[in-house]
Amino acid sequence: MTSAFTLSLDAMGGDHAPRMVVEGLKKAHVRYPEVRFLLFGDQARLSPLIDKAGLGEISEIVHTDEAVGNEDKPSQVLRKGRRTSMALAIQAVKEGRAAGVVSAGNTGALMALAKFQLRTLPGIDRPAIASLMPNIRGESVVLDLGANTECDANNLIEFAIMGEVFARLLLGLERPTIALLNVGSEDLKGTEALRQAANTLREESDLSLDFKGFVEGDDLGRGTVDVVVTDGFTGNVALKSVEGTARLYSSYLREAFASSLIAKLGYLLASRALHKVRMRADPRRYNGAMLLGLNGIAVKSHGGTDALGFANAVGVAVDLISQGLNERIREEFGRLHAPHGEVGRQTKVIPGPGTEARPGAAQPERKAAER
Amino acid sequence: MTSAFTLSLDAMGGDHAPRMVVEGLKKAHVRYPEVRFLLFGDQARLSPLIDKAGLGEISEIVHTDEAVGNEDKPSQVLRKGRRTSMALAIQAVKEGRAAGVVSAGNTGALMALAKFQLRTLPGIDRPAIASLMPNIRGESVVLDLGANTECDANNLIEFAIMGEVFARLLLGLERPTIALLNVGSEDLKGTEALRQAANTLREESDLSLDFKGFVEGDDLGRGTVDVVVTDGFTGNVALKSVEGTARLYSSYLREAFASSLIAKLGYLLASRALHKVRMRADPRRYNGAMLLGLNGIAVKSHGGTDALGFANAVGVAVDLISQGLNERIREEFGRLHAPHGEVGRQTKVIPGPGTEARPGAAQPERKAAER
Repeated sequence: MTSAFTLSLDAMGGDHAPRMVVEGLKKAHVRYPEVRFLLFGDQARLSPLIDKAGLGEISEIVHTDEAVGNEDKPSQVLRKGRRTSMALAIQAVKEGRAAGVVSAGNTGALMALAKFQLRTLPGIDRPAIASLMPNIRGESVVLDLGANTECDANNLIEFAIMGEVFARLLLGLERPTIALLNVGSEDLKGTEALRQAANTLREESDLSLDFKGFVEGDDLGRGTVDVVVTDGFTGNVALKSVEGTARLYSSYLREAFASSLIAKLGYLLASRALHKVRMRADPRRYNGAMLLGLNGIAVKSHGGTDALGFANAVGVAVDLISQGLNERIREEFGRLHAPHGEVGRQTKVIPGPGTEARPGAAQPERKAAER
Repeated sequence: MTSAFTLSLDAMGGDHAPRMVVEGLKKAHVRYPEVRFLLFGDQARLSPLIDKAGLGEISEIVHTDEAVGNEDKPSQVLRKGRRTSMALAIQAVKEGRAAGVVSAGNTGALMALAKFQLRTLPGIDRPAIASLMPNIRGESVVLDLGANTECDANNLIEFAIMGEVFARLLLGLERPTIALLNVGSEDLKGTEALRQAANTLREESDLSLDFKGFVEGDDLGRGTVDVVVTDGFTGNVALKSVEGTARLYSSYLREAFASSLIAKLGYLLASRALHKVRMRADPRRYNGAMLLGLNGIAVKSHGGTDALGFANAVGVAVDLISQGLNERIREEFGRLHAPHGEVGRQTKVIPGPGTEARPGAAQPERKAAER
């Protein structure tokens, strides 16, 4: 049961917007009847869709003619895009009129606008894009999926801390395991940033993360750890490589089952079981990537998704709002930056010398307390 | 039909060596009866295996007690590993006793030893690991898969040129299409090295490559281009992410077909078609990664593979030797560095001073790619 709050929507973002957005809200409404919707976009197109979906009573439409295009550059959108449905939807979160925002629009523009308007949470240098990915054991959190092309050790450590909170809330884990994505599990492998981050994550007891060292690309599918941390370039390539392989495999199967009459019959008999496979691997189930580290909940839906996928992205936003994601991240970084902490500021790699456990001060039982 | 030559083998490399190696050679012998084998390793173990495989007449064993371990550091192997089966097998290529070498051992050590002993081809700064990957259209070449953690624009351009020759020979394409792996297809995306490399590949008509710009991770499965160029870190993560996803999908299917009696029956009916899917996606079919850019043919087999996979790696080596891969690469770089070519001089990107082909001058050893 979620408490009542308002969600802000960029109703014009996504390949099939605004219809896909409103149909997605209709599906989300069934699951979260208490949540209200504040939609930004073309009133003339939205009104009939909202009426048809029966969402009139819980929705408010704010008209704007402008929308961010898929090809628009983030810098341009920042300068000239203040009246776009995306910018206005984010602004509603900043002004407290909504508890979070969901957009299926241009990722770069969304990150730029959200960062500019919402700012990062205290202690966080760079926000990251985080999402769930399926694996043999279930699901894991992977970040960054594309917000930061290049990352230093500090960024990776911040991602690890935020990713851990995200996994606790979204996967309901008490003590998620964490690793850095690398090209080998040996300590010598990878970039200097990775080695530095690994050293800090291993040695700083204040971080109190269950850090497992390095994992490789195939550990994503294996589910070796709950949280996989990487830079935005590698994460984006890995995510899309996984998506492409899933599609490749599906196309192999489709061809195979169509290849003979007897194979078709086999397909018919196994179709219920195969439907489950499709469900498990359905990218729409994993739709909804969180812009983690901002002073407000912002969720990015895949641009090409349909109503079901968009409803899942709305679900991610609702869950994270309900569970107070940002309050938890704030607490976590507040604890790390406490009095003689001031983590990232003085030091090159967080947390620096000032963050050792204070004698006599008991570590808060955060893992247990927060469940 | 291949001409007669000798292939050098690190008979002790790989999880199931030396048995897997010899059984792989037996399979390869059926396909390439003219090729002779020069094996380096434990004579006492190898002799009976070779006899049993009926390869006595075309094989020679050179005994050594030493082998490179999976956990050995490349720098240590370089210093102390001159008598290992891997180092001796490479040395045979250097000394002209073999036309190429295949090893299923430690990748980092293999690259370090091969680079040290064979040196790079004229004009090439860094070798790269290249392999075929399956896609919806067929196969494409991907490089670098792990030799160089960090790459500059020059390295990427060299990879593009070498990858193009590799694709022409191994895929039989007249004019392979080439792209750089990035996080978006827009010109503004990615790292400075990627943007610089793209500019040169686009503008240098001397390169005469069919360069298509940037592709993303999902284009690997889609087969958007024939040659995908990336740094060794990203390539390694992408390759392993693809492998992990294929395994994930297979496990979903196994579970699904085992989930009910009727699904099992469906599996039986479709089993012939599904067998084809397994064949198409079988990683053993794609086993055999080429260490591209060295003054000798060196192929790396997956360490965990079996005889069939190893035979495929041998096949890659035989094909590339027969088709004169390195002569083609030499020609290509020779042409680029010819008097009025001097690509690098004018553009400051590729290949810099010192890397032009100086007849008779030995190529200096450059930055170790070893990690």
